[in-house]
Amino acid sequence: MTPSRLEIVVDFADCDPARIVFYPRYFNWFDRATERMFRERGLAWPEMWPKYKMAGVPLVDASAKFMGPARFGDTITFETWVGEWRNKVFIVEHRVHNNGRIIVEGQEVRVWGLRDPHDPEGMRAGVIPPEIIARFND
Amino acid sequence: MTPSRLEIVVDFADCDPARIVFYPRYFNWFDRATERMFRERGLAWPEMWPKYKMAGVPLVDASAKFMGPARFGDTITFETWVGEWRNKVFIVEHRVHNNGRIIVEGQEVRVWGLRDPHDPEGMRAGVIPPEIIARFND
Amino acid sequence: MTPSRLEIVVDFADCDPARIVFYPRYFNWFDRATERMFRERGLAWPEMWPKYKMAGVPLVDASAKFMGPARFGDTITFETWVGEWRNKVFIVEHRVHNNGRIIVEGQEVRVWGLRDPHDPEGMRAGVIPPEIIARFND
Amino acid sequence: MTPSRLEIVVDFADCDPARIVFYPRYFNWFDRATERMFRERGLAWPEMWPKYKMAGVPLVDASAKFMGPARFGDTITFETWVGEWRNKVFIVEHRVHNNGRIIVEGQEVRVWGLRDPHDPEGMRAGVIPPEIIARFND
Repeated sequence: MTPSRLEIVVDFADCDPARIVFYPRYFNWFDRATERMFRERGLAWPEMWPKYKMAGVPLVDASAKFMGPARFGDTITFETWVGEWRNKVFIVEHRVHNNGRIIVEGQEVRVWGLRDPHDPEGMRAGVIPPEIIARFND
Repeated sequence: MTPSRLEIVVDFADCDPARIVFYPRYFNWFDRATERMFRERGLAWPEMWPKYKMAGVPLVDASAKFMGPARFGDTITFETWVGEWRNKVFIVEHRVHNNGRIIVEGQEVRVWGLRDPHDPEGMRAGVIPPEIIARFND
Repeated sequence: MTPSRLEIVVDFADCDPARIVFYPRYFNWFDRATERMFRERGLAWPEMWPKYKMAGVPLVDASAKFMGPARFGDTITFETWVGEWRNKVFIVEHRVHNNGRIIVEGQEVRVWGLRDPHDPEGMRAGVIPPEIIARFND
Repeated sequence: MTPSRLEIVVDFADCDPARIVFYPRYFNWFDRATERMFRERGLAWPEMWPKYKMAGVPLVDASAKFMGPARFGDTITFETWVGEWRNKVFIVEHRVHNNGRIIVEGQEVRVWGLRDPHDPEGMRAGVIPPEIIARFND
């Protein structure tokens, strides 16, 4: 599939007293980039979740390698794609560019999270519908 | 070494519309838990950094496995320890407990980051002083 | 009423590149301090909300005056109390101390927010039950 | 002056378990909107601050009125302008629109914060240069 692209202008608030992006922010942005990727393919979560009786796409695993910094005012670009579709799980890959250089690579392993009919706050893994996967075929 | 322990009461603001902790928050807490571990051993960063001419302890790698949720009002406990000291790098391990169950395991690979004398915004890896490592021997 | 007290250790992540607490953080802490005040009086929100058919205690107004900074590693203390109970609205006052000095004063005007039976995502203002107010009489 | 405009797509992470934007987020966005307003007028903070020997534009007062909610997926628009320039202080006004309706109005009172030559972590109020104010005359 063609990666989605998301540009982020690094805010003052994204940086810490070491004057670089505070690392957990990248995971916030991974979440945003994943959501935008779905949205671009006609699968905005606020509509997709009720339609498919979902509570969300919770993480079972997240990781990132940090190869370079980003600073206040930098415009960084996230390339995001689904690296693998499994039965109930999918793997989202992220690559972050800053000024021509790859600064972060990340991975999120997410579950197709259905609402639990017996527990309004619960969630259970469900099989990912083929029509969802088909939206990412290009 | 004996792990450090940090209790966190999950705030309303830590949770997302799926009513569980928004996953990047755990990385925020990993950072806090790492800092508190140093502080407990007499190495509070605001004093340690200028003393050792440091700019910080930036990450080169971070990862987490999520095995269970935490919700608004839960008191969760972080166990944090240094799993390995290398020459210029150290590995921090985190294990998060909620109500008798391990819900998250995480790892941060951090660099001993010295200030760069040629660049006030720069940083370079330095050798971890043995007296630092000795503080964690118990 | 006797103010509630909440101690916060300022994290690295709470501070921005100017090396002081990033101001919106105080509003995060106001929210936490308000929640803890209720909890101390036996009114933990995760139980109180379903019991009183509430969706939350949303803000209609928030403000703060900033008189001094806090920095990474400072332990700051929030004093929090209800300044006024109106029919459907209550006013929470916050005073933040750092090292013997008042650094921030804030105010939140909050609505007693009932779930809207006609809209699962909606909310409407309700009359604050006298038994709630009675819990704050001391 | 002509207000600056900033569009924000409300992220999942911006919302809380009540499924509306967690209110302190608006202050984060006020900060971003203020910074973008300066940037649009050729005064990007990462360059402006060193040039004018500044440490920042810290707040002395912030407030907001909340008139309506925003939810995950909403595109909200911030209109931002300087309401008043005083000698060492300026007042930034924010008006937030969601789907044709004003949902938040906010105000930030900010100081022109010079670096303190006697204290690398300090700051003191300075007179706002007329050339800065002139950039906002339209």
